[in-house]
Parts: sequence; C-alpha cells; structure tokens
Amino acid sequence: MKDLSELRVEIDEIDSKIAELFEMRMDIAKNVVLYKIANNMEIFQPEREKEVLLKNCKRIQEENIKPYANDFFQNLMDLSKEYQKTFLKD
Amino acid sequence: MKDLSELRVEIDEIDSKIAELFEMRMDIAKNVVLYKIANNMEIFQPEREKEVLLKNCKRIQEENIKPYANDFFQNLMDLSKEYQKTFLKD
Repeated sequence: MKDLSELRVEIDEIDSKIAELFEMRMDIAKNVVLYKIANNMEIFQPEREKEVLLKNCKRIQEENIKPYANDFFQNLMDLSKEYQKTFLKD
Repeated sequence: MKDLSELRVEIDEIDSKIAELFEMRMDIAKNVVLYKIANNMEIFQPEREKEVLLKNCKRIQEENIKPYANDFFQNLMDLSKEYQKTFLKD
C-alpha cells in the first residue's frame, strides 16, 4: 500500500495537468463564442451540450465513478458557459 | 480564425484527457480514504483542502480564468469527498 505522501504527490501531478487542460479548454470556449458572435450563430446549444456530457461519461471505465463524472463535466460546462457570457454584448 | 469544427475537435481531445485524469484522481482519492481508515486517521482535513485549492488556482495563468478555476477545483474536491464517504462504514 502506498503511503499518504506518495498518494498526495500523485494527486498533485494530476491536478497540475488538469489545471493546464482546464485553462486550455476555457480559452477554446472563448474562441467558440467569438466565432459564433462573428458568424451570427446561436450561442448556446443544449443538444450539443447533452452530447458532450454523454460522450465524456462514456469515457469513464469504472461504473461507480460515472455519476460523479456526470456532475464534474456538467459543472465544467456550466463554468464554460458563464465565462462565454462575459464576451456577449449587453 | 479556426472554424467551429476545429475548435470542437480540440475541446474533445482535451475532454478525453480530463476524463482519464478525473478517473485516476478519483481512484487515488479512494486509496487515500482507505489508507486513512486503515491508519485511524482523520478523514477530512479542511486545511489540506484549502492548500490544494490555492495551489491549483495559482497554476492558472490568465487572471480572468482564476475565479472559474476556483469553482472548478472546489467542485472536483467536493465530488472526491462524496466518493470517499461511500467507503466509510456506517
């Protein structure tokens, strides 16, 4: 059994990667909303959101982690939408 | 300017990596709680949680993404705690 400090180092390494990916994802979400504004497109597409959520939950192998992954990705997409809203004109 | 389909492919690639890291992190969180149970340790340590949150927010370069990162990592840790609770005996 690994000791607590080893497990915490592993969590820290994962968090470092997740933080980088989160920032990249938010930056792309900004570009998505700017693209949609420039092209007079509908900004929020609930069907697309459902598809992304489903696809991401399917990526989870362990059955009992799936419900948590659903909440996790829903929250990620909610935050992405909140950030995108800051680029919309009043 | 990249078109929408290119941006969506990029988001999908990022999500694939995030999903894998999320599952790895939840699995380590399980091992953390099992270690703590086996060693009669305090299960939830709010000070440690605050440190992790602060460290992860500092990893974000873009100032206006930091508040979203705070919510994102808080949610991640909340889900991790919910999952850990399922391993505690009644």
